[in-house]
Amino acid sequence: MSDRVSQAEATALVTLAHALADVARPVTLKHFRTAIEGEDKALKRGPSDRFDPVTAADRASEAAMRALIEQHRPDDAILGEEFGPRPGTSGLTWVLDPIDGTRGYISGTPTWGVLISVADAAGPLFGIIDQPYIGERFEGGLGHARLTGPGGSRPLATRPPRPLREAILVSTFPEIGTPAEHAAFRSVADRVRLVRYGLDCYGYALVAAGQVDLVIEAGLMPYDVQAPIAVIEAAGGIVTDWTGGPVHHGGRVLAAANPAIHAEALALLRHAA
Amino acid sequence: MSDRVSQAEATALVTLAHALADVARPVTLKHFRTAIEGEDKALKRGPSDRFDPVTAADRASEAAMRALIEQHRPDDAILGEEFGPRPGTSGLTWVLDPIDGTRGYISGTPTWGVLISVADAAGPLFGIIDQPYIGERFEGGLGHARLTGPGGSRPLATRPPRPLREAILVSTFPEIGTPAEHAAFRSVADRVRLVRYGLDCYGYALVAAGQVDLVIEAGLMPYDVQAPIAVIEAAGGIVTDWTGGPVHHGGRVLAAANPAIHAEALALLRHAA
Repeated sequence: MSDRVSQAEATALVTLAHALADVARPVTLKHFRTAIEGEDKALKRGPSDRFDPVTAADRASEAAMRALIEQHRPDDAILGEEFGPRPGTSGLTWVLDPIDGTRGYISGTPTWGVLISVADAAGPLFGIIDQPYIGERFEGGLGHARLTGPGGSRPLATRPPRPLREAILVSTFPEIGTPAEHAAFRSVADRVRLVRYGLDCYGYALVAAGQVDLVIEAGLMPYDVQAPIAVIEAAGGIVTDWTGGPVHHGGRVLAAANPAIHAEALALLRHAA
Repeated sequence: MSDRVSQAEATALVTLAHALADVARPVTLKHFRTAIEGEDKALKRGPSDRFDPVTAADRASEAAMRALIEQHRPDDAILGEEFGPRPGTSGLTWVLDPIDGTRGYISGTPTWGVLISVADAAGPLFGIIDQPYIGERFEGGLGHARLTGPGGSRPLATRPPRPLREAILVSTFPEIGTPAEHAAFRSVADRVRLVRYGLDCYGYALVAAGQVDLVIEAGLMPYDVQAPIAVIEAAGGIVTDWTGGPVHHGGRVLAAANPAIHAEALALLRHAA
């Protein structure tokens, strides 16, 4: 549990978060693998990001979630990728990425996700990474750490420590990041056993599920990272920026399965930066 | 249909192919997202391929499929990734990759697949790309071209032509291939709208499903490519080597949604090679 909200409040937050994920599923699936294509939108993540489509599903998904929040918790703030911030008075903020991984979405891969989290001033309290096509939901925080999917429901737990040379690393590089950031990424990538690319939020879900050891990314927004932070930390992992500090406001992210491998990767990123 | 086998034979082949996919599902899922890890095996695809794990599930999946073929069609030959060739007398060969995308499998991503096809001397007649975790099956050949998955069942059809600059390309590069092959790949990759990596057989499935335009790969084996050829060609696409010739024996693969974009990519690959 958490000493940051009451038990009753925690239950209400978790219940609403699942309701948001439920309402986003049919909306995001309506356009998945149809002829619709993303439009190019203004570059948000720096000049190396030449393609960041937004689909109709992206906007409809966020609109549906915002309507539900406004109905049930009108005093909470909202920060969404598509429609920006809405102020609140409760001290809690819902952070929404209606479709994280829009490149994957328009390509038809099942590794995009709906990101939902609720935060206080100290950071995310609870988060969900939902994959509607597979019907797979990773949740963490406020006493929960669970995967529910095609294989049933089971607790989430990150991997125990292993040497970096035996680790699996996930990243969106080389698609994102500056040359300096890419060099820092490579300082870790060249030492691991295996690197997987292009998974977006699904990489964080795999850290929480105990499948991979590290995610390294740059140029992230708060709505990209807050749900992953909640889910991974609830499962036993650590998520920081590349200096070891808090990263819920976005930027350069290092997500790790455990403190040992986090320290090993952090030392390499610091040395390269 | 096909003039290469009778209607009765075609029905028997398609029925058995689905039975093989069905028997492989629980076997591959038994070890998916468990603590099991691949062992390194001898490099099969050249020096750039430093990691090609085989899991217990890989061997158990192929063994289960081979047993079923030997029971129902003892005169057919078998070519499998794990246990090699078994000669036959019928002129038909079952080509099996029990887990294509073992890197993805051990990472927990749902984009690996079971590849099953049956071929005569001219090439594949019918193929299946099966994704057991999602419960998604792409099939093509002998009059069939269909996806059955979480969203139900629908015909497979590739994308209509579009300019290369608007195309989506999928590849396993930079993980595989020689430097020269990588340069040829880049000659196409630098001209498309979007490149996605690390999808293994799932990239071919997305061509057949009308989601992406091109797959470019090198160093493939017959069992990597025969099921994709059958499924993509049944859906309206084209699969050749980098000179435009047949590729069911493996090697350098260019899979395309339609003749127009195939010709455009082929010209670039030839020029670079």
